[in-house]
Amino acid sequence: MDKKLIGVDLGGTTIKFAITTENGEIQQRWSIETNILDEGSHIVPDIIESINHHLEMYEMKPEQFIGIGMGTPGTVDLEKGTVVGAYNLNWKTVQNVKEEIEKGTNIKFAVDNDANVAALGERWKGAGENADDVVFITLGTGVGGGIITNGKLVHGMGAGGEVGHMNVHPGGYLCTCGNRGCLEAYASATGVVRVARDMAEEYAGNSKLKQLTDDGEEVTSKLVFDLAKENDPLAKMVVDRVCNYLGLACANFGSILNPSAIVIGGGVSAAGQFLLDQVKNYFNEYAFPTVKSSTEIKLAQLGNEAGVIGAASLALKFKD
Amino acid sequence: MDKKLIGVDLGGTTIKFAITTENGEIQQRWSIETNILDEGSHIVPDIIESINHHLEMYEMKPEQFIGIGMGTPGTVDLEKGTVVGAYNLNWKTVQNVKEEIEKGTNIKFAVDNDANVAALGERWKGAGENADDVVFITLGTGVGGGIITNGKLVHGMGAGGEVGHMNVHPGGYLCTCGNRGCLEAYASATGVVRVARDMAEEYAGNSKLKQLTDDGEEVTSKLVFDLAKENDPLAKMVVDRVCNYLGLACANFGSILNPSAIVIGGGVSAAGQFLLDQVKNYFNEYAFPTVKSSTEIKLAQLGNEAGVIGAASLALKFKD
Repeated sequence: MDKKLIGVDLGGTTIKFAITTENGEIQQRWSIETNILDEGSHIVPDIIESINHHLEMYEMKPEQFIGIGMGTPGTVDLEKGTVVGAYNLNWKTVQNVKEEIEKGTNIKFAVDNDANVAALGERWKGAGENADDVVFITLGTGVGGGIITNGKLVHGMGAGGEVGHMNVHPGGYLCTCGNRGCLEAYASATGVVRVARDMAEEYAGNSKLKQLTDDGEEVTSKLVFDLAKENDPLAKMVVDRVCNYLGLACANFGSILNPSAIVIGGGVSAAGQFLLDQVKNYFNEYAFPTVKSSTEIKLAQLGNEAGVIGAASLALKFKD
Repeated sequence: MDKKLIGVDLGGTTIKFAITTENGEIQQRWSIETNILDEGSHIVPDIIESINHHLEMYEMKPEQFIGIGMGTPGTVDLEKGTVVGAYNLNWKTVQNVKEEIEKGTNIKFAVDNDANVAALGERWKGAGENADDVVFITLGTGVGGGIITNGKLVHGMGAGGEVGHMNVHPGGYLCTCGNRGCLEAYASATGVVRVARDMAEEYAGNSKLKQLTDDGEEVTSKLVFDLAKENDPLAKMVVDRVCNYLGLACANFGSILNPSAIVIGGGVSAAGQFLLDQVKNYFNEYAFPTVKSSTEIKLAQLGNEAGVIGAASLALKFKD
């Protein structure tokens, strides 16, 4: 009988689980709340208990699994299977995640950074179409992502895949990382709002976005894109600027790596084809000629499921 | 007895050969002129004859070799072992290089793009220290290079590693590729001269570089760097601008790939530590925080030998 995989997507509010086939088809899934109390010391025991409980419920044994893979916030030591500095989990000290989970479940365990794991998911079962070279960008509160070359995640010395920190405007907006001009400072949900507020200040014409900003109303990235779709002149200018930087970043990923696809996901990408078309226009302005025709810019397809599916794929390395 | 490798570095004026150990130590080397007459139809037969002639001279047999690797200009089909569009060789149609050389020498043959092959050489036996993740940038007439992640060259859909076409100044200088603002347009030997001419036009103070430019003297990239080292104020501004773009590009390679080393070679890099220090300053301004401390910017060490050594390493894939 074919063996199964377990994928775990560990987040600050919920922990998602899935049992998948070797081919990444989800067969069972469930989730639990993340208990970050007591310096996050309940998290790993909760994961172990939840897996064991569900295996019992489904009448499955550890031998039926190739392994467990998990995506986590924080800095991961891939070989040791430890995690450190995951502040939204209250993990301030080194956590021996691999050792504890293997001991608690009797199933082999692999762990990687959550953004990398989502990239693996979109590459495997989503817009990446299981190609060897895929770049994944997720536009959320921040801008994260992951890079797959020759079928493998790029970690480099540990920070590989920090796609949100490509500098697209030297000397520009201050980024959370301390530098000025990172993609994240313009194309994250908060970045879009910042661009909107700045451009509203200098804008003199008629615009609903301008009016809302002046009235002190809450402006969101979604609102900016919605107004742009309705032809609000200021919102269109904001979206154009954001897409310019995104297109530049995509062009640079393309010219360096020439992946088959650059996949854009995360909350801001909910703007869909409207966003994609404008990013593509700038990509075509900036990318190396042969890259324009061989690297495709695409929207992510898996949404929240990218995490558990990509996590499950980490365990494929235990397949013999 | 240990088997050997043959490396071939095919250029527009000379073809360099080397016999190396499995560890990349050069044991023999020689070169011949490239005969590009008759649509370059003599090149492959000349390579075959030269290899066979030298094997006879050294009393070596094909069985003593793991394989032959070659770096070539033009577009390479890695699997088929064909080359097309190598205009400085007069190769306008598809050349079945692998088929012909394997038939003519009875040794297995692998081929890749010359910039990629030089990257492999610097990574294996040069400044890359045989690490798994290395970026190589060569500043010559153009700006080329190659990217190694997880120990393998990045080809993507074929154009991976076009490091010279990272856009560092959208809307800037027109590049040979047709885009505006590529690194190549500023940091190649011709790019440096172009920056010098442009900045000389607007410069009003005392400067030998300004004077030479105004007098219509020939200005080279080397001269610009030499004058900058002598504290010529205009030359210093030119070098600062070039290093700013180079530092930005290195920071973006670093933030995306976090390699252990970004290695800078080619003619312009003859400016040495003087160039490196200024590139590092800008790298430290733009790179993601953990990348600043984990990715090192280094000068290439192998010079012209990177080509034959890297080419030889291509044949390691035939080792069983």
